[in-house]
Amino acid sequence: MKIIILGGDGFCGWPTSLHLSKRGHEILILDNLSRRKIDDELGTNSLTPIVSIQERIKVWNTLNPKPITFKKIDIAQDYQALEALIKNYKPDAIVHFAEQRSAPYSMKNTVTKTYTVNNNVQATHNLLVAITQSKLDIHLVHLGTMGVYGYGWTGANPIPEGYVNVELITRKGKLKKEILHPANPGSVYHLTKTLDQLMFGFYTKNDQLRITDLHQGIVWGTQTKETKLDKRLINRFDYDGDYGTVLNRFLMQAAIKHPLTIYGKGLQTRAFIHINNTVKCIEIAIQNPPKRGERTSIFNQVTETQRLIDLAKMIQKRTNAKIQYLENPRREDAQNDLVVDNTRFLELGLNPTTLNEGLMEEVSEIAFKYADRVQLDTIYPSSKWNN
Amino acid sequence: MKIIILGGDGFCGWPTSLHLSKRGHEILILDNLSRRKIDDELGTNSLTPIVSIQERIKVWNTLNPKPITFKKIDIAQDYQALEALIKNYKPDAIVHFAEQRSAPYSMKNTVTKTYTVNNNVQATHNLLVAITQSKLDIHLVHLGTMGVYGYGWTGANPIPEGYVNVELITRKGKLKKEILHPANPGSVYHLTKTLDQLMFGFYTKNDQLRITDLHQGIVWGTQTKETKLDKRLINRFDYDGDYGTVLNRFLMQAAIKHPLTIYGKGLQTRAFIHINNTVKCIEIAIQNPPKRGERTSIFNQVTETQRLIDLAKMIQKRTNAKIQYLENPRREDAQNDLVVDNTRFLELGLNPTTLNEGLMEEVSEIAFKYADRVQLDTIYPSSKWNN
Repeated sequence: MKIIILGGDGFCGWPTSLHLSKRGHEILILDNLSRRKIDDELGTNSLTPIVSIQERIKVWNTLNPKPITFKKIDIAQDYQALEALIKNYKPDAIVHFAEQRSAPYSMKNTVTKTYTVNNNVQATHNLLVAITQSKLDIHLVHLGTMGVYGYGWTGANPIPEGYVNVELITRKGKLKKEILHPANPGSVYHLTKTLDQLMFGFYTKNDQLRITDLHQGIVWGTQTKETKLDKRLINRFDYDGDYGTVLNRFLMQAAIKHPLTIYGKGLQTRAFIHINNTVKCIEIAIQNPPKRGERTSIFNQVTETQRLIDLAKMIQKRTNAKIQYLENPRREDAQNDLVVDNTRFLELGLNPTTLNEGLMEEVSEIAFKYADRVQLDTIYPSSKWNN
Repeated sequence: MKIIILGGDGFCGWPTSLHLSKRGHEILILDNLSRRKIDDELGTNSLTPIVSIQERIKVWNTLNPKPITFKKIDIAQDYQALEALIKNYKPDAIVHFAEQRSAPYSMKNTVTKTYTVNNNVQATHNLLVAITQSKLDIHLVHLGTMGVYGYGWTGANPIPEGYVNVELITRKGKLKKEILHPANPGSVYHLTKTLDQLMFGFYTKNDQLRITDLHQGIVWGTQTKETKLDKRLINRFDYDGDYGTVLNRFLMQAAIKHPLTIYGKGLQTRAFIHINNTVKCIEIAIQNPPKRGERTSIFNQVTETQRLIDLAKMIQKRTNAKIQYLENPRREDAQNDLVVDNTRFLELGLNPTTLNEGLMEEVSEIAFKYADRVQLDTIYPSSKWNN
């Protein structure tokens, strides 16, 4: 298949590009390199030393018979170029990672709030318009987030995959309907993914686009089979207060003998998935597109749920790290249950990598190995939800 | 009160500004004059001859003790200026009309699709961020649309005011919830209003903004008490295939002895409100803000529903116009029932102007009076939903 990976230089996009390339697909990466630019802006870095996208690709193309190609383009800002590229390349599928994906960054200040909304909405909408305009039968696979559901907000546990059966209570009686699960985003970033859902709803209905939306949990882990093939292929590992998701932050803190920083009491339950499973899920999603005319196909891309305190203790057991409780910078429930229905991917053959199996490799091969690259001043949260 | 009217040069914004000014409020109009620019772009015009915003305001300020002020600004593009203006002016309320509001225009081509989404989302979101940033306790009154509900899609008739009671069917049994009515927009324009709703949901929850969202029907009528005071205060009247809503198009067609053009069989039922009632509704909404910390307050801003065929016949009875059936350029149900709950405004004192009472004035005082200004080539629909 010919596949375009939007945001193919990022944490999920890069290993996905390699995985699909390895499987024999023809890959075109489009990226505006914004993640690297934001590192410069925030004074942060990837714990793992990553090389330029051009060098990464050059190395890969010496190892793999099918070369990956790359074009720098800002799909949110340059609609015309995007449309032209799609029409010329004629992809069978497009995987869309090209959104600002940090919740803390999206809450940092007026510039990052407006940037997150403008960038993410324009990127997704430009893409939908360009696919429609191309008249090609392209399958769009989008990275959503578990955060669209809110955490346990409706009380519906397990959280279903995208849609929920309800009875509407009307003056004339009850009516059964299956509706999109009500949205309850917890940050401006999560908000943008709920906006994406409504855009998908319109373009599947009006233009019969084929769209898969993957509501992903928090991704952990760094390397995949493919990124391990050469040290210049290594994946990025974010640990700072904005882009470092909770598990990576804990790992890095353990490595430098810093206490694991828990926001609040750590009784928040979150959903997780290993990067190895992420790339496999995307492969499965591409192989199983919805039919033309069907509504958005939604998967929960999650393999397990954990309370943050239990996660910290898991790492503590392996590293003897201390735990430090910080005031929670986020507005969120102090405590929540979370059970997630992930039947669809399991039935299609996903084989979960659990935290219990995979954590030690992260500790020794990544966090402790690159601990000397940590910039200490970026560890603490610098964004507040009510600033 | 000090009130900012965003989009105060437009069809609803202008009479609202005058009405609230007449009531003694201090009014600042912000507008980028995009509606006039789009007239130039499309080669269309207002049937009524409208003067410049500067002249309109000059005339008004000779008639009314409280002067209206105006500043040209594009709130979607210039966040910094918007924030500064809000902080300096310190309004009690902001009325937000500043969105591209034509469904056909929003479906015309790739430029108008992306413009509509980018402009409307950025305008609303910039505003939410700027109000949050100002730390002022400002009541935001937003013009939404009945189109967010879809027409009879859920089968919930009457359509409730924004929220709907449901029972979620979960593995553990049924859970009662009141949720935002599921969105089912019929055009890119309507889509943007469903995106607005989700943004309001987030900013009421996270930042306790006070927001009222008015789900308006199709506005008909031209003049209000205030716009009649001087001919240079006259309101705009759009009749072209893109911006002319169905009733105004029929009126103009009758005036020039053109058949009334019905899309499909005319069995679509739509909700209507007279411009006189619109300005009154906004006054009522301003007087009845939600409390800080409450969810978005939603009103259905509608006074009656009519099938399009019945509307045509109403005008036919008064003018002897013929009726012409055209292929429907829109993707929509050929036929729908529509009953709308508008209890909230009625209970707060709204006194509806019905089509039966008000139609003749529109026929004689507007359509026939200015018939010589019609540009014939703009009558037919020029946007298709599946182009």
